[in-house]
Formats: sequence, C-alpha cells, structure tokens
Amino acid sequence: MPEIRELIREGRGKRVYATDDPDLAVVYYKDEAMAYHGLKRGRILGKGEINNAICQHLFTLLQGQGVETHFVRQLDARQSLVYRCDMMCFAVQVRNRVAGSLHARTRLPVGMKLDQPVIEFVLKESDMEDPLVNHTHLLAMKAATIEEIEEVRRISKRINEIWTAYMSEINIELIDFRIEFGRYKGKILLADELSPDKARFWDSRTHEPLDIDRFRRDLGDVKEAYQEVLRRMMGDQLTTNP
Amino acid sequence: MPEIRELIREGRGKRVYATDDPDLAVVYYKDEAMAYHGLKRGRILGKGEINNAICQHLFTLLQGQGVETHFVRQLDARQSLVYRCDMMCFAVQVRNRVAGSLHARTRLPVGMKLDQPVIEFVLKESDMEDPLVNHTHLLAMKAATIEEIEEVRRISKRINEIWTAYMSEINIELIDFRIEFGRYKGKILLADELSPDKARFWDSRTHEPLDIDRFRRDLGDVKEAYQEVLRRMMGDQLTTNP
Repeated sequence: MPEIRELIREGRGKRVYATDDPDLAVVYYKDEAMAYHGLKRGRILGKGEINNAICQHLFTLLQGQGVETHFVRQLDARQSLVYRCDMMCFAVQVRNRVAGSLHARTRLPVGMKLDQPVIEFVLKESDMEDPLVNHTHLLAMKAATIEEIEEVRRISKRINEIWTAYMSEINIELIDFRIEFGRYKGKILLADELSPDKARFWDSRTHEPLDIDRFRRDLGDVKEAYQEVLRRMMGDQLTTNP
Repeated sequence: MPEIRELIREGRGKRVYATDDPDLAVVYYKDEAMAYHGLKRGRILGKGEINNAICQHLFTLLQGQGVETHFVRQLDARQSLVYRCDMMCFAVQVRNRVAGSLHARTRLPVGMKLDQPVIEFVLKESDMEDPLVNHTHLLAMKAATIEEIEEVRRISKRINEIWTAYMSEINIELIDFRIEFGRYKGKILLADELSPDKARFWDSRTHEPLDIDRFRRDLGDVKEAYQEVLRRMMGDQLTTNP
C-alpha cells in the first residue's frame, strides 16, 4: 500500500493524491456532485463508493480489450491506485444520441440517434464552460501534437465501441460520455473516470436516465440509479451477494 | 443586364436578389455595419461601394489562381452579378494571428502569430452567436458530406495562402477572415464576400486595424481605413486616376 502524499488535483467528483512512488497516484471518489459547470452542486450519499466500483469494473473491461488506462487496482471502498499521468488540458466527449449541449449547439432533436458518433474536444475550463475546440486550436495552444490528437481520437472511438456493446448487454444505452487522457512514460493512457457522473446512460427499454442527469434535472432517485447501473454491471455477483 | 427579382437573403452587409436567370443572382452591398452578432449596428457611408470594388478585385485575383468563386462581374458601383448558389449553412474562419473570439476561447494572447492557421467551422446562426462546430457535428446535421467538408477545408487553406501573400505585397497583414461556400452545378464555389467587414487587416508596419474592428471598437476613421485598403489594392490605377 503506497503512502499518500499531497493533493495533486480535485475534480467534480474526486480528489487525486500523490504517493511516495512518483509513478503512482491515489484517486479518492467523493459524494459531491456538480452540474452546469459548477453552478449546481450537491451531495449524493454513497456515490463515491459506487463510482469507485464502476470505474474498477469499466477500466478492467477496457484493459481486457487492449485499451491502456491509468487504472492499477482498487485500494478500498472509495480509493483506487492509478498511474500518475501528466493530464492533457482537454477532455473528449463522444456522443451516440443527441442530448445536452449537443442539442443546444446544433438544435438537433434530443434523443436523435447519430449515424456516426459526434466527437468533441473541449478545454477543461469550467469558468469558461469548457469551450469546444478543434485540432487546430489544440495545435495553436501546443496542447498536443497532431499525432497525439489522432491517437486520442482513435482510442476514444474504440472505447465507444467496446463500452456501447458492453452496456447494451446489460440493457443500458450509452448516450454520450466524457473522458480524459494523460501522458505516462511515452504513452497516452485513458485516465480520469468512467462513471455516471460523466456519461449519459439510458435504460434500453424505458429510456429513463440512470446518470447525473437525474441530479441535473431534479428527477430524484439519483443514488438508486447509480446503484442500479452497478448492480447490472456486477450481475450475478451482486445478486447472490447483495 | 439581368432583370432583378425577389430578395433571396439579407446579410450583415449586403442583400442578394434573384434574377430572371435561375443560375444568376445580384449582390447589393449596403452601407450598414454590424458587430457582436448584430448587437452593435451602424452605418458607414460609402462602405457598400468600397466593398463591391474590393470584392471584385479579390474574387478576380483568386479566380486567376484557380479558386472557383461565385463572382461573374461587377454591374455598377454597388452591385455585382454572381452565380446563384445553394449556400452551405456554415461559414469557415481562417486565422493567422490570435484576435477576437480565438482569444476568448483559448486565452492565447492577442496578436500571437500562429505556426499553422487555425480553421474553424461555425454555424451561421447569429442568434446563437455562430456556434463553433466540427466535422462530426456537420455530418450529424447532414450539413455536408465528408468529401465536401474536406474540399471546403482544402480551398480555405488555399485561399489563405493566396490572399495572405497578396496582402503582404500591399503592406497589409491578413490576420483572419470568414468565408462562405455554396453549391453550384455539382461544384463548391467560394461565395458571399471578401471584405474588411469579414476579415481583419492590419497595416504591416503599424499593426493598425484597417477593417471592421475600427467600427467594433470605436477606433474612428472606419471609411478611411476601408478606402485605404482599396487604394492599396488598386495601386497605380487609383494613384494616377483618383
């Protein structure tokens, strides 16, 4: 067990700490929830533990399919050990149906299924509402090389394929998600988190949201929705051992 | 001379009319000026005539270098004949130095020279402040095919090369510009206008703006700046015959 040192960064739903090993960091998943670029804040009791478990499950799934991620192992109910990455200053949003800001930007109808995924690069600048950028902006900002940007785009599409197929098996439609990448020893790793805090999950049959939209739009049963996602992911494991 | 029919569309600085020939339209250049997506409006007496002359000059220049445009010929002081295009719903912004919304989006310092041009696709939706989009948004909106988008990108870069080199000869630095394209008989034509209304021109030595920024930022001498641009473009022609 590595020794935890200083806080490196704090996000909407987690804190990342340095450890006594310069190659490793510890992610602590919080109960705090945030929406609308921080304008709406709240707390979903138990969310941190659920997200830690969901991340463990999804990172392991992706690693099994050849996607390199920062995930090393779960440490306890709220903490996981990860490779300490030099995080990129932009996030990637992948979308399979129209929702949220994609509707606001394009006026395409909410729920419209996209023939091909929409892929967006956004700067991680909450106070600027995470502005959309394209690869020429990222090059101008020296945020990444063109090779890195193409690699990030390629991995993002691959993650979408794997994750969409997996969610479909548990009767959840992956509407969209936001991911972040980091540099680690010359490689680009999927970092940050994969959770209902940063994705839209719709029940395949009812189209009910099972994600942060329940908090964002005051739909209630937020924790229950997160638990339901985890329950479906764990399948028999949880059914027999609740 | 074609017979002018109904108004097809009206932009910030011009009106476009149908003619009795379904393949042709007439552009009428107005004195009205607009900035900040229509929030600031005014009138620059004589601007319409100057922009008509500048457009005639620049479209002819580009056509001479192999860029296909909608321009047919100047009709009179304020009007030109053009091919009647099916206009694309997005504009292209090409940037060689940081200014305006590129600074606001990226926080890169105003005036910073870019190693490679920044190329932006924006929806022509003034009431939404012309939102930035990328090619995946355009595909989702069925605004263009991927081949059309690549063609638009290629032509835009070519226009930037030709226009930048030409302006440099008359001691003007082409900071950025906004252009629009239309479909005409299976081809993509540069349409709309090429004028100080939709570009930033800086005097190469003093870096004084010679464009709509003088109106936008209340710098005064707006018409004089437009006239100076035209004077430099016409060179000896105007010097000997003022």
